[in-house]
Amino acid sequence: MEPARDNGTHLAGPVLVIGTGLLGASIGLGLRARGVEVALSDISPSTQAVAVDIGAGRPLGDASGFAPELVVVAAPPDVAAVLAASALADYPGAVVVDIASVKSAVLQGVEAAVSEPVFLERYVGTHPMAGRERSGPVAATAELFTGMPWVLCPGPTSSPAAVRCAEALAVDLGAVPARMSPEEHDETVALISHLPQVLSSLVASRLADTPAHSLALAGNGLRDVTRIAASDPRLWVQILSANAEKLVRILYGVREDLNRLIGTLENPVAAGARLDMAQLMAEGNAGQARIPGKHGTPPGSFARLTVLVEDVPGQIARLLTEIGDIGVNVEDLRLEHSPGRQVGMAEVWVVPGRRNELAESLTGRGWKVVQ
Amino acid sequence: MEPARDNGTHLAGPVLVIGTGLLGASIGLGLRARGVEVALSDISPSTQAVAVDIGAGRPLGDASGFAPELVVVAAPPDVAAVLAASALADYPGAVVVDIASVKSAVLQGVEAAVSEPVFLERYVGTHPMAGRERSGPVAATAELFTGMPWVLCPGPTSSPAAVRCAEALAVDLGAVPARMSPEEHDETVALISHLPQVLSSLVASRLADTPAHSLALAGNGLRDVTRIAASDPRLWVQILSANAEKLVRILYGVREDLNRLIGTLENPVAAGARLDMAQLMAEGNAGQARIPGKHGTPPGSFARLTVLVEDVPGQIARLLTEIGDIGVNVEDLRLEHSPGRQVGMAEVWVVPGRRNELAESLTGRGWKVVQ
Repeated sequence: MEPARDNGTHLAGPVLVIGTGLLGASIGLGLRARGVEVALSDISPSTQAVAVDIGAGRPLGDASGFAPELVVVAAPPDVAAVLAASALADYPGAVVVDIASVKSAVLQGVEAAVSEPVFLERYVGTHPMAGRERSGPVAATAELFTGMPWVLCPGPTSSPAAVRCAEALAVDLGAVPARMSPEEHDETVALISHLPQVLSSLVASRLADTPAHSLALAGNGLRDVTRIAASDPRLWVQILSANAEKLVRILYGVREDLNRLIGTLENPVAAGARLDMAQLMAEGNAGQARIPGKHGTPPGSFARLTVLVEDVPGQIARLLTEIGDIGVNVEDLRLEHSPGRQVGMAEVWVVPGRRNELAESLTGRGWKVVQ
Repeated sequence: MEPARDNGTHLAGPVLVIGTGLLGASIGLGLRARGVEVALSDISPSTQAVAVDIGAGRPLGDASGFAPELVVVAAPPDVAAVLAASALADYPGAVVVDIASVKSAVLQGVEAAVSEPVFLERYVGTHPMAGRERSGPVAATAELFTGMPWVLCPGPTSSPAAVRCAEALAVDLGAVPARMSPEEHDETVALISHLPQVLSSLVASRLADTPAHSLALAGNGLRDVTRIAASDPRLWVQILSANAEKLVRILYGVREDLNRLIGTLENPVAAGARLDMAQLMAEGNAGQARIPGKHGTPPGSFARLTVLVEDVPGQIARLLTEIGDIGVNVEDLRLEHSPGRQVGMAEVWVVPGRRNELAESLTGRGWKVVQ
């Protein structure tokens, strides 16, 4: 990956967005907010109508004579390649990008589907890292990509001008462009996105028969691990299928570790069993510590403070206002649940150098600083 | 599990706490705050000294003639049973509880270690669901158990008076007592605590060799799934060993699902492969939806609103103050990260009936409501 260049160019338009779900409609809204002309097209007339109604662009209608600068294929992975190939043929003056969350399979699909190899110069695969659990144009927003990474994955034949155009799309929508080969992109998302997704689903699927009173004892650990298990199965089946080769290699490693762990648990008093368990946990420690924090800061670079708050309107606002008065910036914040009680804990992350001072000041103001 | 009875009785003391780490010292602090006399004992003189210094109790010193009402064994699972059995012999007038996070193995250990079977009438296994990643008496607080579940697991021979005493401990510390058999407790924690812990570690351990620029693309999904992978390996080896039989049975099911998934990924175009993947994801959806929310409310009972906030001091406080002015209670709150950008999203959960009104009011006040 090399940092993408910011050459100051912007899209002039018009832009055609094919597929007007959450991402396509959000792209339309963002470009319209910059004054770029946007035409919309979706295989579902009602989805397209909603996107038009919220102001994401005008309906494409009769395309004869229409000459977009850029076509954005915002369709699911299954159909992205065919739609991109069609767009390359239909709009010979346009750069065509897709935004599917797998890149090698889509590139291969476009290569197989284009009528003329020279068309590939105008194609660039991209992936904005801004997916959410919700879907559809109703959830769209011009700000969806603000501050989020947008990976550009030029193919071997993508022209520099086409890549600049794709980059301008990302920059115009407030995203942070980054470049990777399709191969590296797919390896990366298999690890940082597809692996946690499937293991979260594996944990959550075990809860089908758990009595409700047992689930009532669940803490934030279980909630955190299973949160993304709520994601849309239809979309994920397409993603997993399209990146199967990369993901399955990682899952072989997981299976090996799981078998090792099962072996130790089948005979926990065997020689080496505890050492094996400890190694597995320690490897988890080491991997977790490598994940960077907010704004790309080094992992673990903020200190945590836990404060008891009553669950009445305005309590958290009051806490944060007082932290602001003390002059400390809140880098991250999380509420902890207290099942059965109208009380909670606010976990506040701040720069380590201010933590103790903040704890003292808050205690002096009557807050219960728990940790 | 049956709801525990609140019979209004409180501990009179004195209470002896054996083991003065995070949990033991927090119990001491909480009881001292209620005016109960607390004596402390730890195998490590320095750990005990810190607990005494922070006000968790006095050093036990010469125990001859000391007659506690209750002995709390707050030692790791490995040694809890032996310490409980000793305490039952040493303090013939005392109820003895332990607070280890596994219960069948500790009960069996106590049964095997007591010098007189009649002693078991005075023993009750318990488990406060209030563990944290941090440890040691320095992190202790009188409020650690406030609002958290505290499971009481009487053995077959525990006397009603001993159970009432254990329950008084939980209630006096502000916890919410619940009752389960040791067997049911261990099955429950295997599923809601030990399973997510080991799978979180399995995911995180895959990140050891990932390039930093790939990890920089990580979103909240990976962060959520791997957060608890930061936990202490030494403690977890004891927990997993002591609950190995229950956990391994759940892991057999996980392995079966993992093998099924691997099979579909090895040949994603095979008949039924996509259906198998979709089923796995849908089972995850169903399990995740069963986890109750804050205050034991039904899962999914709050509506989410995402608001763009600049990362400057006081911005989140201002947002929450204005939400308070609008008169809506924030049920949960989370900050989303924006790698490379000084901007973030605040995800705010509110009762569904107020969501749209709140979104309109905030937009009217100049906030960018993203979703």
